[in-house]
Amino acid sequence: MKSEDEFFADLFRRLPAFPAEVVIPPGDDCAAIVWGENRLLLLAVDQVVGDRHYISRGEQPTSPRLAGRKLLARNLSDIAAMGGKPTLCLLAGAFAKDRGEDWLREFYDGIIALAAEYDVSLIGGDYAAAPHDDVASLTILGEVAADQVIRRSDARPGDQLFATGYFGDSFATQHHLLFTPRCAEGQWLAQQRLARAMMDVSDGLLCDAARICAASRVGLTLDLEAVPRRGNATIEQACGDGEDFELIFAVPPECAPVLTASWPFADTPLTRLGEFTATPGMRDNTGRKLAAAGWDHFVF
Amino acid sequence: MKSEDEFFADLFRRLPAFPAEVVIPPGDDCAAIVWGENRLLLLAVDQVVGDRHYISRGEQPTSPRLAGRKLLARNLSDIAAMGGKPTLCLLAGAFAKDRGEDWLREFYDGIIALAAEYDVSLIGGDYAAAPHDDVASLTILGEVAADQVIRRSDARPGDQLFATGYFGDSFATQHHLLFTPRCAEGQWLAQQRLARAMMDVSDGLLCDAARICAASRVGLTLDLEAVPRRGNATIEQACGDGEDFELIFAVPPECAPVLTASWPFADTPLTRLGEFTATPGMRDNTGRKLAAAGWDHFVF
Repeated sequence: MKSEDEFFADLFRRLPAFPAEVVIPPGDDCAAIVWGENRLLLLAVDQVVGDRHYISRGEQPTSPRLAGRKLLARNLSDIAAMGGKPTLCLLAGAFAKDRGEDWLREFYDGIIALAAEYDVSLIGGDYAAAPHDDVASLTILGEVAADQVIRRSDARPGDQLFATGYFGDSFATQHHLLFTPRCAEGQWLAQQRLARAMMDVSDGLLCDAARICAASRVGLTLDLEAVPRRGNATIEQACGDGEDFELIFAVPPECAPVLTASWPFADTPLTRLGEFTATPGMRDNTGRKLAAAGWDHFVF
Repeated sequence: MKSEDEFFADLFRRLPAFPAEVVIPPGDDCAAIVWGENRLLLLAVDQVVGDRHYISRGEQPTSPRLAGRKLLARNLSDIAAMGGKPTLCLLAGAFAKDRGEDWLREFYDGIIALAAEYDVSLIGGDYAAAPHDDVASLTILGEVAADQVIRRSDARPGDQLFATGYFGDSFATQHHLLFTPRCAEGQWLAQQRLARAMMDVSDGLLCDAARICAASRVGLTLDLEAVPRRGNATIEQACGDGEDFELIFAVPPECAPVLTASWPFADTPLTRLGEFTATPGMRDNTGRKLAAAGWDHFVF
């Protein structure tokens, strides 16, 4: 079988052309459509699957509240990655038919509590029983000024790569369930026009950095020692584990001092990780080639 | 355990208030938000689950192409039910991990072919492997003029109940896989302002007619003998089977003659099924009480 990336690239080649109102087509963290004067509607969908994104059964199952929270949180992270403000969502859930009312209530409560915190309204949904598994998907809507939206395709050689937060060891530390989506940081970067390209790291730092490089047709020199590590993560884990849900972004060189001087988020570490290059490919500071690695769940 | 209807009603009571831009909140076939001058954006989500909405395995599994087709078709039917035109969609799929490339390609091709037919663009998605089941959800977007949108809550006593197509026996006849979503009919009814309330029948004619009655705070006298039956359906099956994906709608009495005289869809039967009443509850022509029955998959 082809890789998922290849499979979906092929699928997208067979799709009809997009209407003009679709200003950002699939391939970024969100698609965007025209939404009035200088405003875009951002749209993305993401899902959680039991025993893939959380522990579904057994002696130490994930709290359904945290599983539900994660579903919304990873979608919020996609809106953050475009510099947007999340607004509305729709939820589809198919849950194993033996899930009782308490389990379902907790799952939904995990979503509702985080939605209230981020001022997001649930405007639709569907529920079904599934034979064995739990699969829930959430479509998120958000908005951003058209002249502030940050794509992953606009990094330029010489831009500095910055990141929020820490990387690696997301499962053992429960970070993958408890992380804070970086919506405030993403919106601030968009409004200050300090980031030229951005995405969130869900599939691993190297894997997602390689996606910025590919979309922007640039290379990257990454300072591996600079990558802030979570918990007991090794450098390899920090670069490859995934589920970090931090923002990585390209900052024009002249903006880097302004960024570090004016960063207003005292609780969110801000770290310079490297520099984009005209030469394609990713290398460490010694010139050694880095291969993209990370989680193999494809998001288009 | 509570019924799903009660569970979700309770859930919705605990949600924060909707922002003003949400002009049709959850509870109709679609939610709607303000989308420019006299234009609404319609949004709905629906899913198909293997061995619940199609036959997943065994000797005579459903063609994955038809399973994919059904996923989009049932969403198109939700847009049709509001009088809207479908425009964009997002797809999340979690498929059993042993599904190979051919199966997946056929599933997606079923969606893509119908999307091309209805001029709908796929603008985002997510793919994951699931331990056992296939669960795919699709969020549909559509548009409708704000002064033409048809809700399910505006039927009045004296309005005539009309329906498109046939009812019952949807599984044996494969209608549930092959049906034509009534988008053209729904848009025409909206543009001609001939329907005061409308919804699509997915959970059974009586069940969904009862939902129009409840939302509109009216009753209904249903002419059971008039219900057009598909295949070998009995009256009971026509009223209760579900998965018909036909439109039922309330027509002001003065509009009924115009409707029947001007109905332009030669291939789509149009039938008068009854009359809405001030007295709550549903009765047949003899005054016998009718109970809502049908599929128990809750859609909000």
